[in-house]
Amino acid sequence: MNTSQYPSVLLENAVNEFARLPGIGRKTAMRLALFVLKESKADVARFADAIKTMREEIHYCKSCFNISDSDVCDICASAKRDHTLVCVVESVRDVMAIENTQQFKGIYHVLGGVISPMDGIGPDDLTIQPLVEKAKAGEVKEVVFALSATMEGDTTNFYIYRKIAEYPLSVTTIARGVAIGDELEYADEVTLGRSLVNRLPFEKSL
Amino acid sequence: MNTSQYPSVLLENAVNEFARLPGIGRKTAMRLALFVLKESKADVARFADAIKTMREEIHYCKSCFNISDSDVCDICASAKRDHTLVCVVESVRDVMAIENTQQFKGIYHVLGGVISPMDGIGPDDLTIQPLVEKAKAGEVKEVVFALSATMEGDTTNFYIYRKIAEYPLSVTTIARGVAIGDELEYADEVTLGRSLVNRLPFEKSL
Repeated sequence: MNTSQYPSVLLENAVNEFARLPGIGRKTAMRLALFVLKESKADVARFADAIKTMREEIHYCKSCFNISDSDVCDICASAKRDHTLVCVVESVRDVMAIENTQQFKGIYHVLGGVISPMDGIGPDDLTIQPLVEKAKAGEVKEVVFALSATMEGDTTNFYIYRKIAEYPLSVTTIARGVAIGDELEYADEVTLGRSLVNRLPFEKSL
Repeated sequence: MNTSQYPSVLLENAVNEFARLPGIGRKTAMRLALFVLKESKADVARFADAIKTMREEIHYCKSCFNISDSDVCDICASAKRDHTLVCVVESVRDVMAIENTQQFKGIYHVLGGVISPMDGIGPDDLTIQPLVEKAKAGEVKEVVFALSATMEGDTTNFYIYRKIAEYPLSVTTIARGVAIGDELEYADEVTLGRSLVNRLPFEKSL
């Protein structure tokens, strides 16, 4: 006799698994499980296999730590990219966001997060040391920080800066300012203030 | 050379599969895929297997069409339930909602949806005929409609009513009215009007 609120242990297991995903509560998990039940067996098998196969067979680029299907990612393997220009980002999502702009022709370095003592993430949990090694080896002319403009992001920027400042390379950070399309009165004070301090020659904004 | 915006075909496949789920857009799908990548291989395998196994091995009760782990669900198999009292619901979710109230001691009949010409769902796509057979066989004393209070729900109620009205059984519907805990001024007009027309002797509300 099944005494849980679910009419089936199989359903309950699936709901429990869906509910472990971030942002998915039990009601949504139930909706997803019932959706799966209405799909064809072939569709569901493909869904399950895609997830399992991804987890088991995914590679991380041994140079930049981006997700990849091989040992070196397409970006690091490309002769068209400037390998002396390295953009430091938090995650693969940031790589994709920057790639979509088509404005960056260097390579990346994916940290895998930012330093966050509150979450128990220290420098050794991130790929900071390999970046320092690259800098030490003289392969890099410019490091561009593109981390989130949060306290954790700033802390991480500063930590890395102190580690690589001794080597002959320039360290830059992406511009912070009023977003294009935004009305001035809605910009927050810190951003507006920073955008005034870091004002540009007008010609550069054209 | 991978020319899509994704750094990995494996990742792209998983994102595509997540994005097919209802209410999951591409950004959320990406977040789910990256969450899966950070989980242990064992956790991910258990997740994928739970979904695949549920789809392949789930049963539907041959009597009420509720989801079940065997040919007859626990409710239909129970001698403690009143098998002459049948509550007609749209989906297994409704069964669970009513079971949680612990106020219903009959059995269920899961239609698998409501009649909705707009969505191409006709009477033959639902389990209406087996319900009519039950009524015809004289097994049922009362049918309780507990479908959504929508046009589709009302249409379905009426369609079934016409099919079973000729048999010696009573047909009822769950009460509609102002929800318990709701302030009167926020109740919609139709609900409020219906709750006045269907007013009860005060003693029954105690």
